[in-house]
Amino acid sequence: MADNFHSITFEITTGTAEVALDITDRCAAFLDTTAPGRDGLLNVFVPHATAGVAVIETGAGSDEDLLAALRDLLPSDSRWRHRHGSPGHGRDHVLPGLVAPHATLPVIGGQLALGVWQSIVLVDTNRDNPRRTVRLSFLG
Amino acid sequence: MADNFHSITFEITTGTAEVALDITDRCAAFLDTTAPGRDGLLNVFVPHATAGVAVIETGAGSDEDLLAALRDLLPSDSRWRHRHGSPGHGRDHVLPGLVAPHATLPVIGGQLALGVWQSIVLVDTNRDNPRRTVRLSFLG
Amino acid sequence: MADNFHSITFEITTGTAEVALDITDRCAAFLDTTAPGRDGLLNVFVPHATAGVAVIETGAGSDEDLLAALRDLLPSDSRWRHRHGSPGHGRDHVLPGLVAPHATLPVIGGQLALGVWQSIVLVDTNRDNPRRTVRLSFLG
Repeated sequence: MADNFHSITFEITTGTAEVALDITDRCAAFLDTTAPGRDGLLNVFVPHATAGVAVIETGAGSDEDLLAALRDLLPSDSRWRHRHGSPGHGRDHVLPGLVAPHATLPVIGGQLALGVWQSIVLVDTNRDNPRRTVRLSFLG
Repeated sequence: MADNFHSITFEITTGTAEVALDITDRCAAFLDTTAPGRDGLLNVFVPHATAGVAVIETGAGSDEDLLAALRDLLPSDSRWRHRHGSPGHGRDHVLPGLVAPHATLPVIGGQLALGVWQSIVLVDTNRDNPRRTVRLSFLG
Repeated sequence: MADNFHSITFEITTGTAEVALDITDRCAAFLDTTAPGRDGLLNVFVPHATAGVAVIETGAGSDEDLLAALRDLLPSDSRWRHRHGSPGHGRDHVLPGLVAPHATLPVIGGQLALGVWQSIVLVDTNRDNPRRTVRLSFLG
């Protein structure tokens, strides 16, 4: 592995409810360890077909608002063709079409160059998969 | 061109219906040729204003479900201001606002680090443009 | 800073109306200065929790169509939990969940490899924040 690329995976408990989980601290800790003082790009990726990565404010209701908007835009009803699980589960498979499972973000001096109100969030509406993997990759 | 960057384009037939076309094999073949055993990021990009790139499950209905959701969210009716083509065609130009025409994904040991159920999909609702270009770029 | 990475920020006036502002020229000028003739990836990032980056056609109504679609999908009403500002402002905080605040795009020979009809657009529905920062980063 060349020194300019580092990648890890970690597991996270998402439980059995819809969640928008703040993983910013995990991303920052990864950069502290693997890219101290360095510049480049951080790629955040979830290797799941029913989850996405968003960059939004957390702690003031917007994480819940995003989940509510997704319930409205992708209703958990019988409209979906996806043939596995309960009918409403089909929406979870459309989610990554709107909230992509990847985000690539600037890193300056070993720090994520996020805005004050931005957090990196794992969006997971799938109640049947309580554990998730996240892959973080730094390229500098 | 530096050895750490490789980029190609290829053409793909999307036909005259709405499609969500699995291009994962094309991406894997590109990496086999240009980045065997290497680590880095794959950028998938469609240089079109009426197409997007999604990472979803294929083969179990979710590709059709995504197209159906987009028909619901961006109806093919007369609401659009876009002045070219038929009125409903305006929705195709809004599509890349929701399903972005780019995806940047981790590559580990020359392989896409996708989840078991993830595929890379070209989303094209434009029935008037039956041939599309895709650009694949590896940066390691 | 290694020679293969360059990053700047610039400020842009978005005013007090909803806007989809074409910033393609700013991106091209950045590459002209920092990456002439070079290959790599351009990361476009807005460090704000109420804005996004889209790659769409401009000048033929689609920028207005995207804003109209977002008004329909994320209505400016009292449904939002976000507790700051006016109730409808909560939608602005959900926007980056659908129109992500980042885009990573291929650069070939110092030029953005965009399609003929593609522009890079800052999407900002927040009327209370008339000045915005954009970060451009080249990694080659």
